[in-house]
Amino acid sequence: MGNTFGHIFCVTTFGESHGPAIGAVVDGCPPRIPLSADEIQRELDRRRPGQSALTTPRAEGDAVEILSGVYQGLTLGTPIALLVRNRDMHSSDYDALANVYRPSHADFTYQSKYGFRNPGGGGRASARETIARVAAGAIAAKILYCGAGVEIRAFVESVCDIAMPDTAEFPSRETIDATPVRCPHLPTANRMAARIGAARENGDSLGGVIRCRVRNVRAGLGQPVFDRLDAELARAMLSIPATKGFEIGDGFASAQRTGSENNDPFVVRDGKITTETNRSGGVQGGISTGGEIFFRVAFKPTPTIALAQRTVDAAGNPVALRARGRHDPCVLPRAVPIVEAMTALVLLDLWLLDSAQNKTFDHERLASA
Amino acid sequence: MGNTFGHIFCVTTFGESHGPAIGAVVDGCPPRIPLSADEIQRELDRRRPGQSALTTPRAEGDAVEILSGVYQGLTLGTPIALLVRNRDMHSSDYDALANVYRPSHADFTYQSKYGFRNPGGGGRASARETIARVAAGAIAAKILYCGAGVEIRAFVESVCDIAMPDTAEFPSRETIDATPVRCPHLPTANRMAARIGAARENGDSLGGVIRCRVRNVRAGLGQPVFDRLDAELARAMLSIPATKGFEIGDGFASAQRTGSENNDPFVVRDGKITTETNRSGGVQGGISTGGEIFFRVAFKPTPTIALAQRTVDAAGNPVALRARGRHDPCVLPRAVPIVEAMTALVLLDLWLLDSAQNKTFDHERLASA
Amino acid sequence: MGNTFGHIFCVTTFGESHGPAIGAVVDGCPPRIPLSADEIQRELDRRRPGQSALTTPRAEGDAVEILSGVYQGLTLGTPIALLVRNRDMHSSDYDALANVYRPSHADFTYQSKYGFRNPGGGGRASARETIARVAAGAIAAKILYCGAGVEIRAFVESVCDIAMPDTAEFPSRETIDATPVRCPHLPTANRMAARIGAARENGDSLGGVIRCRVRNVRAGLGQPVFDRLDAELARAMLSIPATKGFEIGDGFASAQRTGSENNDPFVVRDGKITTETNRSGGVQGGISTGGEIFFRVAFKPTPTIALAQRTVDAAGNPVALRARGRHDPCVLPRAVPIVEAMTALVLLDLWLLDSAQNKTFDHERLASA
Amino acid sequence: MGNTFGHIFCVTTFGESHGPAIGAVVDGCPPRIPLSADEIQRELDRRRPGQSALTTPRAEGDAVEILSGVYQGLTLGTPIALLVRNRDMHSSDYDALANVYRPSHADFTYQSKYGFRNPGGGGRASARETIARVAAGAIAAKILYCGAGVEIRAFVESVCDIAMPDTAEFPSRETIDATPVRCPHLPTANRMAARIGAARENGDSLGGVIRCRVRNVRAGLGQPVFDRLDAELARAMLSIPATKGFEIGDGFASAQRTGSENNDPFVVRDGKITTETNRSGGVQGGISTGGEIFFRVAFKPTPTIALAQRTVDAAGNPVALRARGRHDPCVLPRAVPIVEAMTALVLLDLWLLDSAQNKTFDHERLASA
Repeated sequence: MGNTFGHIFCVTTFGESHGPAIGAVVDGCPPRIPLSADEIQRELDRRRPGQSALTTPRAEGDAVEILSGVYQGLTLGTPIALLVRNRDMHSSDYDALANVYRPSHADFTYQSKYGFRNPGGGGRASARETIARVAAGAIAAKILYCGAGVEIRAFVESVCDIAMPDTAEFPSRETIDATPVRCPHLPTANRMAARIGAARENGDSLGGVIRCRVRNVRAGLGQPVFDRLDAELARAMLSIPATKGFEIGDGFASAQRTGSENNDPFVVRDGKITTETNRSGGVQGGISTGGEIFFRVAFKPTPTIALAQRTVDAAGNPVALRARGRHDPCVLPRAVPIVEAMTALVLLDLWLLDSAQNKTFDHERLASA
Repeated sequence: MGNTFGHIFCVTTFGESHGPAIGAVVDGCPPRIPLSADEIQRELDRRRPGQSALTTPRAEGDAVEILSGVYQGLTLGTPIALLVRNRDMHSSDYDALANVYRPSHADFTYQSKYGFRNPGGGGRASARETIARVAAGAIAAKILYCGAGVEIRAFVESVCDIAMPDTAEFPSRETIDATPVRCPHLPTANRMAARIGAARENGDSLGGVIRCRVRNVRAGLGQPVFDRLDAELARAMLSIPATKGFEIGDGFASAQRTGSENNDPFVVRDGKITTETNRSGGVQGGISTGGEIFFRVAFKPTPTIALAQRTVDAAGNPVALRARGRHDPCVLPRAVPIVEAMTALVLLDLWLLDSAQNKTFDHERLASA
Repeated sequence: MGNTFGHIFCVTTFGESHGPAIGAVVDGCPPRIPLSADEIQRELDRRRPGQSALTTPRAEGDAVEILSGVYQGLTLGTPIALLVRNRDMHSSDYDALANVYRPSHADFTYQSKYGFRNPGGGGRASARETIARVAAGAIAAKILYCGAGVEIRAFVESVCDIAMPDTAEFPSRETIDATPVRCPHLPTANRMAARIGAARENGDSLGGVIRCRVRNVRAGLGQPVFDRLDAELARAMLSIPATKGFEIGDGFASAQRTGSENNDPFVVRDGKITTETNRSGGVQGGISTGGEIFFRVAFKPTPTIALAQRTVDAAGNPVALRARGRHDPCVLPRAVPIVEAMTALVLLDLWLLDSAQNKTFDHERLASA
Repeated sequence: MGNTFGHIFCVTTFGESHGPAIGAVVDGCPPRIPLSADEIQRELDRRRPGQSALTTPRAEGDAVEILSGVYQGLTLGTPIALLVRNRDMHSSDYDALANVYRPSHADFTYQSKYGFRNPGGGGRASARETIARVAAGAIAAKILYCGAGVEIRAFVESVCDIAMPDTAEFPSRETIDATPVRCPHLPTANRMAARIGAARENGDSLGGVIRCRVRNVRAGLGQPVFDRLDAELARAMLSIPATKGFEIGDGFASAQRTGSENNDPFVVRDGKITTETNRSGGVQGGISTGGEIFFRVAFKPTPTIALAQRTVDAAGNPVALRARGRHDPCVLPRAVPIVEAMTALVLLDLWLLDSAQNKTFDHERLASA
């Protein structure tokens, strides 16, 4: 349990960082959709390390292979298995860690849970697992975009205390990917890059916030009462390694307002009912309003740092730890495609659920029965 | 779909605010546990309106009846159905609202989703639905406490911009319930009460933040990679009406730190490995560390206010809305038992899942095979 | 776990035979469908005891109440809770049984599983639990019939060694309900009635076989590879108390044929591809062919008999048991609506799943992407 | 949906017959269990074609690779991904079939469902998919055997009208595998072999019945009311390609008996309560009694035969079909390990569920609360 996401569009991931492979099985995909490994690879390349001086120099190839579910370039409706072999593993970097609990890593908790773990690269708790999510999310995002015009854009809003200004404009992917930081506001991106570079020099790491914006989602998605759209997004985001917080719409800021300040009045625009403001982030009562959906996700600083740290080994002996290996001083730039992937998985699954309940039968026919 | 929570300890809720009844079916409860309607009622009474001048004067009786799953005062292991009849409904308060979309309520989104809704009291999206969660959560909390000593304490940390100071001490329920605000810090509670009273006078409402602290959870709970403890808590909290944000441990504050500032060093205390600090909130890699679990939940101000608001009706005509009915100017005091209930549901379910995978068979026997 | 059926149209049942109530929560029902308690009651009345001299004289009222999910006579899309209070319980009939394990009943296995049970009337294992299924199935059957013209007909094909002849004609419900035996072939029905009467006189009971036929199911229902239509039907049927076998199409008879004898050639009839014969029972590769679906379900004789039987009590002491209480000498006539209900639940759930995957998006649009 | 089996021990399979690979992801496996590819391979070799003159001469290598979830020879508790590459595919055998619906195959129904299919070797509906089940089942069977001594033995009881006599003795695997037919009664096995040989000569195929017997399952497994042990077994068996019927215990024969003939009296044997007879097949009220579990599964004759058959193509034109390719004249010998695998998956999953609900907490502690 725990390795499958979704009710209808179900993604199961597998793989340890230094095991033979990482992969996903995507069940419930609609049939007859054009799909190639290349399309998925493009998303993986956005997630992959070694893209710039700001990320880890590990040159993970991360080449994806489609093992099933696609025939003559079209999806079959059957499970799509996606495989990425692990390569360029420096497991010897981890030999010294086999009995050491790295601070704020999952070493101790996995050991506590299972009485055993694969220490190399963080094992199952490694961010490499998200390769599988990005691959699966690429399929979901394509279906949402091609089938309904849905656009999902995540970007780095802040790194440490450097934050970009709010903008009304929906950012293009080109703007976001224009710098290695994946912040669409160039002056801010440059300041972030400098700060990340400095952290790397110091052997330290930085946290930050990713914002995600989604447009063209129709009103009505989200299942009351537990599988609300915002609840599913919260779960999806908190399932990403290193995340510590989530807010939909104005989030924690809303908690400091009065109702008269915070409510979004309904108005008619272009003949359609919509909200004048969008403090709610496009979700009311757990269901999409048809307006832009937006949310923010807090990432802690990478726990693996070159600076010396105190910790203990499995026997409880004090250990002075100084990480070797090759690590990102700031995970946010590479987390952007992961946030987008998880968002796509949530939205597509809720879309299919909503259709099943509300669009299967002809209601005129049912009502006249 | 959407109305069931949990994998093994499964809670399904039903009921509209102004329909005949609200209830829950709890499947997967361990057998032979002493259980009475009175115990559940005590928790419902904490959630019920009319407790003080700070909450709505509606005198909902909310008397719970156990319909199944208990025999001679003990659980049977079969589904426990819990029923609360709706009474004291002033549906006529809602007649004028049948075609009006109240701002930042679920009226419009439910109508968009289903093409139909029960307008009375918010229907299925009403906070009355949480009666069912509090009832089910009372059972889970009892099992966790009696079976493992787990204590769950939620309390109001801030209302609008009034926040209590941090305290190391784990608050007792008596301290929390000592004031109608459910803030355990008396001077802050008094200021909050005054502010809520003022908002009521103005016909306005207030948001705020609830903090929840949990102790005596053993290390190892949480399922990688999607059903992490923090991800499940996030989903549970965002499924509560009016919530807009969640953070585990230091949350968004962690995003502004460096790794060396944020990491929790492991140490040995009383012969047990634990963390020296607990910025992570008792969860690392999605799995409990054995330390205190804590998180914060942001609630927006109640959208129903007496102040005049602009909105539209179903035909898109502008409407000036001034809520009648009896509403809380601040939902937080009554949301405290709801946060506790959802926390209990998450923890018990993950506890059972963990036991199933890790404790079913004798590992010595398996290993020597 | 174990008390919920379905993936999208999810039915959770609760209740012990001699507890306060039996009920079901139906989640995932499409909205805006006319639904009244009377319609559900009609199906419950077909299941209820005391309908004729052939069934138990217990006069269970079994009046159903709709607690939620319906407003102004239309479904809301939210969970529909259905409640039937237990009445006319002669629990004293069971006092003597509290410590005795009735042969081929669930007393011993429930006690073994839970270490505790409600002995009255069989507790959770009582056939009274199927009230909840019949009530939920009535909703599913209505949707299938009104939304797609699907007709489901179960009937008693054999009692002990008395079997009706095969008929091509699809039987009407009127023909089936014309006799208390619910066998649509009148001469056979009369012989069955006589045999059941004789068994009752002897203090004994009889088993038999129910056949179910379904028409107007479109081709394409059923999910590969585990949730096949036939696999789901098998599970649904074996979940009915007292069932011991299931066969789809020609079933065990097929096992004695050669491939050339058993295959169903494809032909074109009325411009549509169909099978010339239908030995497969309307399912190939686990997916509906569009032809008539038919299957058979074996029921063992009621284990409760008035004849003396040997058994043991909880301490292992030998006991001579002679059932008092009021029991059916043959459950099959009353099991007919239960088989129909479970069939409706399977078909509707798979219909919704299939629509979600295959009909949500416009494939032209997707394909041209 | 549809490609995952199990609630806690969850198996997801993927792969088309003539696609790149077949595989499974096993989630929920207990940690620290010794596991090697060799152990799994042994079971796959029992399923593989080309074992004898009675089966297809296709020389599928079917070498399994473990991609994740195992480290240093021990399970990690994380998902175990199992991969088998497809080789020796003669897809050209199927070129002529791309537009032809083979009688009693899944060609037509998959095309109806998805509007598209991979025709090679039956695509997803191919029996090659069961490689994944056998691989996953090998892990479950090992856990059941090593952890609890559970032994699962399936064997061919009848081929066409040739049936072996009933035996009390629990057959060893050696006896079953002594002949290529996998019938443990040698004289019957020889007659079956001759009949299968004759069918092959005729270009025809044969059906039959597999019996499965299981011992050392403790009392108490199975979840009321829908996930009964017998219901889960029925679903599991009917999910195997070519199956048409299932009976637990005496099954359809019970339907012809009276209650006094069919009931299993309880007795004390070796100080333990058990049943004197076992007509129920070790399951009462859907829950295991602790006695031997046995059931029978009907397989239709292989639909692919060399004899000429009438059918139609996708356009509805009549086609005379004569299968080329290499096919089993009787699938039963190779289906034996599949039946065992599915049985192991059902039992282990229910075992884990039962433990979660009933064994997680100390009931003394709970009861005294």
